[in-house]
Amino acid sequence: MQKSSVIDAMALKNEKKIVLLILDGVGDINSKHFAWRTPLEAASTPNLDRLAAEGVTGRMHPIVPGITPGSGPGHLGLFGYDPLQWEIGRGVLEAVGLGMELLPGDLAARANFATQQDGLITDRRAGRVPTEETARLCEKLRKIDHIDDVEVIIKPGLGHRFVVLFRGKDLGANLTDTDPQRTGQPIKECLATAPDSERSATLVNRFVETALPLLADEPRANAFLMRGLAGKPNIPSMSERFKLTPGCIAVYPMYRGLASLVGMDLIPTGTTIDDEFATARERWADYDFFFIHVKGTDSAGEDGNFEGKVEVLEQVDRALPALLDLQPDVLAVTGDHSTPAPLKAHSWHPVPVLIHGEFCGQDQVAAFTENNCNQGGLGFFTSKELMGLLLANALKLDKYGA
Amino acid sequence: MQKSSVIDAMALKNEKKIVLLILDGVGDINSKHFAWRTPLEAASTPNLDRLAAEGVTGRMHPIVPGITPGSGPGHLGLFGYDPLQWEIGRGVLEAVGLGMELLPGDLAARANFATQQDGLITDRRAGRVPTEETARLCEKLRKIDHIDDVEVIIKPGLGHRFVVLFRGKDLGANLTDTDPQRTGQPIKECLATAPDSERSATLVNRFVETALPLLADEPRANAFLMRGLAGKPNIPSMSERFKLTPGCIAVYPMYRGLASLVGMDLIPTGTTIDDEFATARERWADYDFFFIHVKGTDSAGEDGNFEGKVEVLEQVDRALPALLDLQPDVLAVTGDHSTPAPLKAHSWHPVPVLIHGEFCGQDQVAAFTENNCNQGGLGFFTSKELMGLLLANALKLDKYGA
Repeated sequence: MQKSSVIDAMALKNEKKIVLLILDGVGDINSKHFAWRTPLEAASTPNLDRLAAEGVTGRMHPIVPGITPGSGPGHLGLFGYDPLQWEIGRGVLEAVGLGMELLPGDLAARANFATQQDGLITDRRAGRVPTEETARLCEKLRKIDHIDDVEVIIKPGLGHRFVVLFRGKDLGANLTDTDPQRTGQPIKECLATAPDSERSATLVNRFVETALPLLADEPRANAFLMRGLAGKPNIPSMSERFKLTPGCIAVYPMYRGLASLVGMDLIPTGTTIDDEFATARERWADYDFFFIHVKGTDSAGEDGNFEGKVEVLEQVDRALPALLDLQPDVLAVTGDHSTPAPLKAHSWHPVPVLIHGEFCGQDQVAAFTENNCNQGGLGFFTSKELMGLLLANALKLDKYGA
Repeated sequence: MQKSSVIDAMALKNEKKIVLLILDGVGDINSKHFAWRTPLEAASTPNLDRLAAEGVTGRMHPIVPGITPGSGPGHLGLFGYDPLQWEIGRGVLEAVGLGMELLPGDLAARANFATQQDGLITDRRAGRVPTEETARLCEKLRKIDHIDDVEVIIKPGLGHRFVVLFRGKDLGANLTDTDPQRTGQPIKECLATAPDSERSATLVNRFVETALPLLADEPRANAFLMRGLAGKPNIPSMSERFKLTPGCIAVYPMYRGLASLVGMDLIPTGTTIDDEFATARERWADYDFFFIHVKGTDSAGEDGNFEGKVEVLEQVDRALPALLDLQPDVLAVTGDHSTPAPLKAHSWHPVPVLIHGEFCGQDQVAAFTENNCNQGGLGFFTSKELMGLLLANALKLDKYGA
């Protein structure tokens, strides 16, 4: 039996409400670059510290020790899905990141504009076309809205990137890229790597043949390349697995998309942390699991902006009373991964985690920082194990065996 | 995907240098036998303590909690190979421990002299023949240097033990022992347990038949038994798996042999810790991963020599500045297992570990001892996970997923 399935098998429905508050990239490191302090240590966060003092704390490895996750695997783990078991194709992640809804049987590709000459690619990024240009170019491609009975949906992304989504029935996604990966080569034919995807390969190749002439008069962006063709992963929903009625409160499309992949309701919300907590209040009766996502900690970390990360943490802390007023039965605060300011990137460092609730126990940790959480009563574990702890604390798990 | 392979799949080549300094058997226990102190607590180790204070620490289970490893599995774990997945046959370990180089297709057996009478074994160890005797007896057996086109290489070991190595092409190693495991039984015929090893079985039996007459006039050692017949394991190298260029600096043949099994270069060195660190300096440009092995901690532990273990630790600490001068990007100090002086043997106790580097973070542990490392920012993990952490700290791992 897999570790995840013992949780599934024991899941019970009850009235208790769980809030999973994700401060994206919250974990950081003590380093010489910022006077050996972390943003959590530098920030004034009396509410988070009180939750840590009253509750139980620990550290979570996002995947396994040493592995740095992208946002996709990082969040899958938090939602109770082993990120090494459930892989999300790049095309799907890109589509989801642009706020595109995926249906079962859809096929999504990461695409980007390129330059070709005499049938050979000379620039795989078309001189990095700016975002506005890409919007104009995508408008041209939108002349193709169907191939036979398959709908074609095109959406521009950042820079030279866009997404092509094919909406049909059972479009197999075992396909090779059209990107030759280096210049001096022609656009590659898309090939099926399994029999279920022969029709999809034909479809993709027909799209390329039909679309290229629409770009013929472009000086630079006269071609495009497609990669990471993928279908919506066949992931059992959180309600199937955990008997939860989960709602997602997130501002950024990527995280809303990831939540939708595991069957969360996407609750409309505003743009600030206060908006998100207000949304939780308004919809409090409708769900028993709230995933609330705060992006600012990650963005500041990515920028190497230590003070910015401190500010976001203090914002969250000031906003927290509104969430605490709702008296969630179980509240967890953690991150999907660390984004240390000294690294300006996602990292492998374990994230601090706190769980607060009536039956969580109480360790001797009195402040929510990385090093304090080393001493916590939850010890070190991996993110995919968090969901079991949340369900348990909400008394939503039956006893295993007699 | 297996846990190990996600590390492999993410491995990147860069210029950063990793040093893995193994103090064999370093871990110990606080017990009444030595005034409740451990050698690490008793030793004066200002350099190790500074590394712990600047870096991040934890405890490692060599295999799984409770399991005491031999040197083989202990080191495989450190090198990033799950010791429960990659088994090294006893014959191979014995050969490697005697400094014999193994080639793919070789077949190695642990052998030992025994006494027989009227075709029945009367003493399975021939009264524990001393080492010098064994050398003389092996010289007799060396009359057999080939069987057909298969080369036979014989090397004496400690006491009554020796190694027989058959060097041929694709010698299958699915074989039973010739050791009957008790007296009053004849030497057993070697049997193939898989069709690929029929030829090997015939070879082994022909060797026994040819060799026994050479010992006929020996009063005690007139027979020998062979066990643990094994071939060189088909282990992917560290350079294949982790894109490293690894070099081994170790004095003892066993550890050099283990390193060679995972594809490390065996760097010639002297006999002291200072020699080993000087070798690292001389060959610093040639490798991006150095495994440096110190044996004395284990030997002292095996002897129950608490003070001796303290002395070795202080020797290492005094020598350390020469290694630190090289400014490795990532330095880890730990052991392959504990060898507590009160136990006079390898043990299951988790070993203390420290990692030092620019992006390791810094916990609140200020001294390199077992109990201090309990509080560390690495938590408790298993040895096979160490390699992922070393690669991560050297920024040699790509992000998993987007």
